[in-house]
Amino acid sequence: MSTDPTAIRFPEVPAPDEQARRQAVVRQELLTKPAGSLGRLEEIGVWVAARQGTCPPRPFDRARVVVFAGDHGIAQHGVSAYPSEVTGQMVRNFLDGGAAVNVLAANAGATVRVVDVAVDADTPAAVSARKIRRSSGSIDREDALTAEQARAALNVGRAVADEEIDSGADLLIAGDMGIGNTTPAAVLIAALTGTEPVAVVGRGTGIDDRAWMRKTAAIRDALRRARKVLDDPVALLRTSAGADIAALSGFLAQAAVRRTPVILDGVVVGAAALVAEELAPGARQWWLAGHRSAEPGGRLVLDHLDLQPIVDLQLRLGEGSGALTALPLVTAAVRVLGEMATFAEAGVGGPTESEAIGPAAESSEL
Amino acid sequence: MSTDPTAIRFPEVPAPDEQARRQAVVRQELLTKPAGSLGRLEEIGVWVAARQGTCPPRPFDRARVVVFAGDHGIAQHGVSAYPSEVTGQMVRNFLDGGAAVNVLAANAGATVRVVDVAVDADTPAAVSARKIRRSSGSIDREDALTAEQARAALNVGRAVADEEIDSGADLLIAGDMGIGNTTPAAVLIAALTGTEPVAVVGRGTGIDDRAWMRKTAAIRDALRRARKVLDDPVALLRTSAGADIAALSGFLAQAAVRRTPVILDGVVVGAAALVAEELAPGARQWWLAGHRSAEPGGRLVLDHLDLQPIVDLQLRLGEGSGALTALPLVTAAVRVLGEMATFAEAGVGGPTESEAIGPAAESSEL
Repeated sequence: MSTDPTAIRFPEVPAPDEQARRQAVVRQELLTKPAGSLGRLEEIGVWVAARQGTCPPRPFDRARVVVFAGDHGIAQHGVSAYPSEVTGQMVRNFLDGGAAVNVLAANAGATVRVVDVAVDADTPAAVSARKIRRSSGSIDREDALTAEQARAALNVGRAVADEEIDSGADLLIAGDMGIGNTTPAAVLIAALTGTEPVAVVGRGTGIDDRAWMRKTAAIRDALRRARKVLDDPVALLRTSAGADIAALSGFLAQAAVRRTPVILDGVVVGAAALVAEELAPGARQWWLAGHRSAEPGGRLVLDHLDLQPIVDLQLRLGEGSGALTALPLVTAAVRVLGEMATFAEAGVGGPTESEAIGPAAESSEL
Repeated sequence: MSTDPTAIRFPEVPAPDEQARRQAVVRQELLTKPAGSLGRLEEIGVWVAARQGTCPPRPFDRARVVVFAGDHGIAQHGVSAYPSEVTGQMVRNFLDGGAAVNVLAANAGATVRVVDVAVDADTPAAVSARKIRRSSGSIDREDALTAEQARAALNVGRAVADEEIDSGADLLIAGDMGIGNTTPAAVLIAALTGTEPVAVVGRGTGIDDRAWMRKTAAIRDALRRARKVLDDPVALLRTSAGADIAALSGFLAQAAVRRTPVILDGVVVGAAALVAEELAPGARQWWLAGHRSAEPGGRLVLDHLDLQPIVDLQLRLGEGSGALTALPLVTAAVRVLGEMATFAEAGVGGPTESEAIGPAAESSEL
């Protein structure tokens, strides 16, 4: 428990609806397919029914991506293949519709919102209204944020989740944009999963061997600072994250509090998810893992949260791209459970009695 | 080579377009994402560009699923959990839009056609015009088809591919429906990959241990007959397949001849693909593997054809369901390559020089 009396508290995370889950399991057996033959699509359909509290589940009315953008002081120390200027440039690219997140969202029937939490540049007013600061402290040597900024950033994420849910979002995806952000993500993942830096560091946007060594050293140094506040998730965000990742954590925790399903993205969102699960235990019951990132930290996140990825396509872009790649499969799972005919409706016979091969069993037996 | 002078011959399979492939590889590097960061989505986009012979690739105008339905004599011998009557019932379910293939096709923007090749029941005229026969011989003790039927069935598949491509289909998916069809599929896979029956037999629609033993014995007996005609793919179809699988083989081979990309489904379509690759060597260059089936034979097919599945969700339904689950990701890959902004268009800087961390490199360097 936190020792900070001003620490942010989330209400208890509600459990998914057990009755809807059971109804969905039964319905899967009634549909015109061998039991279990749609594998994980069946499980995902059941999962959504339990989160929506209804069976069959409804196709998503408003799947919404929120990309939280922020820069990182550590990027000044050679841990990324790209300069920090790219963060603000990519925010404009998001607004112009030219980025991967825009194309993948359109393909999956989702819409995109961008929130500048800590971009080290001026961005349009439409995205900067909730800006906490420019960039963050370099976490290998100083705190990323002040205590006040950490709390404020968490509250940005929480407020954005509330806004989106109040506006009708029934599926949320969080995305990240920020040059250097896989370094704080690796620190958070290493800290919360008890992993050594060398096992969590990845190539990020595509760094060379020298940058890899600098990044590993930065993670090692930052991890020493992070381990002192391991028992306090808000302090961990202050020390080792940045305003964008803090906002992501608040967003993911609040989505769970508000009973809204989330598809997680890759390593940066995953790091925020680890913190969110500390802030709001049980939040992970409201999250699907969209994909297994090519970054080594991605696998550690999934193992720690006990989540199975839907796709595994060696993605390592962020922005919500992995979650959006999985979204059409989640939609497919929902539609299968809602739209397929039952054996009875279609007049299709069920399995034969296993030891008496002969005419079709009554479909009512299923 | 076949020793049968009446054997069906396919023209040489054309190679994909190398120039379009190279253009697509270059274009992936120009788009506003770190090089390679969209992993297999990038590879799939390049793959489609090379098959369409144009870069950027076009979104599919008419993605078309053809389900080839047929019954199997072996199903009378206790190798399936369902009776043969279900094949015809499911054909009606397809026509009514209630099956998994219908829902998954709608979700992926594809349309479905059903062809009754050998259903052991009367089906509507709209789907039975090309029917070869009812059911097939029980392949553990007799040939599935006569030589004439095998050739006719192959030609059905070939003609259906031609019809669909001539009607504008620019992506084809083959699906299967037939109680008992994973038994001939397992025989073909075992025969063409040199695998023992016990390593290729699966639970199909969900058989119990006794049925599994019967199925394994049937595969073993059928495999003895199949091995005598291993060097002649048409004779192999006659001996060990069935009219539906023969039609599938002709369909898959002809799609390649006609330069039309295909997403393969699971173990039954995969078995037909192995035969199609024998009939038309190089046809596999025109196929993507939609998924890795939960059936053990699925993995053997992918290894033999050297194809990487797009998804791995423990599906084992057939009907084209696995290919249709992958289709939205193929569409996503095409749209990413076609619709994302380049660094130059978006005014986004590229990577820093690796050893001179500083301002953004000129994007024209990418």
